[in-house]
Amino acid sequence: MKTDKNDRILLAHGGGGQLSDELIRHHILPRFDNNTLAELTDSANLELDSKSICFTTDSYVVKPLFFNGGDIGKLAVCGTINDLAVAGSKPVALSLSLIIEEGFEFKLLDKILDSISQTARDNNVNIVTGDTKTVEAGAADKIFINTAGIGVKLDGIDLGFKKIKAGDKILINGTIGDHGMTIMSQRKDIKFQSQLKSDCAGLADLITKLLEGSNGVKFMRDPTRGGLAVTLNDIARQAGLSIEINQADIPINPNVQTAADMLGFDVLDIANEGKVVAILSAESADQCLNICRKHPLGKEAKIIGEIVKPKNVPIVEMTTIIGGKRIVHIPYGRQLPRIC
Amino acid sequence: MKTDKNDRILLAHGGGGQLSDELIRHHILPRFDNNTLAELTDSANLELDSKSICFTTDSYVVKPLFFNGGDIGKLAVCGTINDLAVAGSKPVALSLSLIIEEGFEFKLLDKILDSISQTARDNNVNIVTGDTKTVEAGAADKIFINTAGIGVKLDGIDLGFKKIKAGDKILINGTIGDHGMTIMSQRKDIKFQSQLKSDCAGLADLITKLLEGSNGVKFMRDPTRGGLAVTLNDIARQAGLSIEINQADIPINPNVQTAADMLGFDVLDIANEGKVVAILSAESADQCLNICRKHPLGKEAKIIGEIVKPKNVPIVEMTTIIGGKRIVHIPYGRQLPRIC
Repeated sequence: MKTDKNDRILLAHGGGGQLSDELIRHHILPRFDNNTLAELTDSANLELDSKSICFTTDSYVVKPLFFNGGDIGKLAVCGTINDLAVAGSKPVALSLSLIIEEGFEFKLLDKILDSISQTARDNNVNIVTGDTKTVEAGAADKIFINTAGIGVKLDGIDLGFKKIKAGDKILINGTIGDHGMTIMSQRKDIKFQSQLKSDCAGLADLITKLLEGSNGVKFMRDPTRGGLAVTLNDIARQAGLSIEINQADIPINPNVQTAADMLGFDVLDIANEGKVVAILSAESADQCLNICRKHPLGKEAKIIGEIVKPKNVPIVEMTTIIGGKRIVHIPYGRQLPRIC
Repeated sequence: MKTDKNDRILLAHGGGGQLSDELIRHHILPRFDNNTLAELTDSANLELDSKSICFTTDSYVVKPLFFNGGDIGKLAVCGTINDLAVAGSKPVALSLSLIIEEGFEFKLLDKILDSISQTARDNNVNIVTGDTKTVEAGAADKIFINTAGIGVKLDGIDLGFKKIKAGDKILINGTIGDHGMTIMSQRKDIKFQSQLKSDCAGLADLITKLLEGSNGVKFMRDPTRGGLAVTLNDIARQAGLSIEINQADIPINPNVQTAADMLGFDVLDIANEGKVVAILSAESADQCLNICRKHPLGKEAKIIGEIVKPKNVPIVEMTTIIGGKRIVHIPYGRQLPRIC
């Protein structure tokens, strides 16, 4: 063993006593320097710009903890920011709750906390409240992270399934499947050499520019677990309309396609962590595409299809590269555990 | 095995596909019937009464999941409500995030979800957003729950360490140590027969009545992990003042005292889940005591001590039943893992 007992998390770090205090004061607080958190009261006090807010939560159990393009900490910040942003709000405050397995190395914990801190700063949000629990060795796999987030609704923005109409266009801000295939390629059980990199990124800045630059955005969602397939099917079902997409227009990194083919996955089902699907009025499609393409996170943005009246029940149909048509189903779900 | 595969959580229930959808629609949504959650958007939309809010989070890893007086679900709702209430806010919305081990029985999951639903209703808060992750068998111990919460600050209420002055009185709403000793007594490894019952309860109603009925409340905290010892030491340190308490005035259930003595614990260090420590102006102490005692959760309320000028550094000192004095230290933390 290269590290000694003092380099690792003990059960007592979660006991609420002296060691909990040390963990919080030496490892956590210095990385999240803001007045609200530093007060260490039971709840954070926030003064908001508006009475109209968004509220979301996600737990992160990704395996491995560190992967090309990110880590569980970056993911935990970006994922929650993105959920707030696609709802048409400006993310302002996050909570951070850790469940840590006894014996987890402080070196790794600090690396994850640094990543959380950096990502929060990059995305202009504060971690304002938190919690740390420890569980005995074997009762959790290293570390699980929950972030909840509060966003302030952007003025005059009203997004929703109800606004979607036949003729609307479907935009995505770049290649699909990068996150999920990167994680799969780095799993111990199926590790293989690859050039894959997760797209893990905070989308609030891109989305704000889109919403401020165009009034044609009707609905947005980030296609995470379940990928584009689940997101589009959800939109179709909730809007009561069908969707037609063109395979040739969907941006896919060739290495991602190769990896998916090797492992027998459909890229449409694979998780993304830096992508947004936006439903746009037909008139605003070019304008939105231009706004995206000027942004570092939207350079490969494409219009991939449109909303159509359903012939029978709402479905998602894809015109394949060779000109055939196939229905895009919701995946059953078994393929990709612990992808985020 | 009494249950078959269909009675248990599969990894695929967390995959974001069809099975995730079934889990959410059949097990979760029907129990948390409210319009905000039912929209199933990435973030919940909330209209608040005020721009001044409280925000908190806690993860719950209690073991065992079910105990006399509650379960992990009830705890997850009450704990977060109490953190909001002691900060002087009215809890309005909670998030609910589940990390479930593959193979966990639906029967138990449903029981926990029922408890969450009932406790939320009893305390007049809505679960408005959520998340569900699954991990493979062995990667988590059954189920971990995170709740984050938003409370709207009560009008005209301004609590804080800074308001605390020498002469202020210290109130607790009832017996200490009940939760922690109940959990310890029900652990597989040290199970013993007892009449113990957790005090797990939502304190928002009691606290609101206290704040509305008296303007003498200066600060509140719920003495959870680390018990009264940590809470009082924290108050002393943050206020820069000392605390004197009288052992004879601290309400303790005799069965809890016996169990603590048997297992070698100091009841002051033991977690509570339905208690609030309030620092009161001396003039308001009787008034606050009366308000508490009229409430079902405050019948055994007592004034247990007072704030004094520190002789040297701020300390917590206790006059023992036999008339001696001892310093109440912060416990190291190793004693009680997974107590909440």
